[in-house]
Amino acid sequence: MYLILYDICNDKTRQLLVKFLKNRGLYRLQKSVFAGDIKKNYIKEIIIESKKIIVEGEDSFIIIKVNKDIFKKMIWFGIDIDVEKYLKEKYIEVI
Amino acid sequence: MYLILYDICNDKTRQLLVKFLKNRGLYRLQKSVFAGDIKKNYIKEIIIESKKIIVEGEDSFIIIKVNKDIFKKMIWFGIDIDVEKYLKEKYIEVI
Repeated sequence: MYLILYDICNDKTRQLLVKFLKNRGLYRLQKSVFAGDIKKNYIKEIIIESKKIIVEGEDSFIIIKVNKDIFKKMIWFGIDIDVEKYLKEKYIEVI
Repeated sequence: MYLILYDICNDKTRQLLVKFLKNRGLYRLQKSVFAGDIKKNYIKEIIIESKKIIVEGEDSFIIIKVNKDIFKKMIWFGIDIDVEKYLKEKYIEVI
């Protein structure tokens, strides 16, 4: 699984990136965070495409590879999160 | 290590949270992302305090526990990241 975090100053650039990440099967976790269980070659493509889109020294783009267990142990509150959507598998919350 | 991700609508609430997270030894990774190697009881305190601060159903607050290896394998571009600051140990980037 991958977490993608970004700070993009330009609105048009940001919208372009959001569209692109959604097309590659990632789901929006927060305004500037996407997550999903996608193939490695998609990540390579995302790196290539994102480097073309973002403004060096101004925008920030981070990719973190996490395993499903880490994602399942995530703590969240405020707005509910449908973890199964990200994991693409059944998930029983451990409280 | 912990990653803390948030979407906070109210500016005052957000500033309060930022101050609080910095006081607990976390560093800002992006505008709405903090990270750091802090003690478990600090995380408990952060959960209690953040639940008081954020607006249920409007704001989003996520805590993800990651190990140092995951953080070291992070890919980033755009704005440089001083990984050592987060890890609190020497770090040699593997390219």
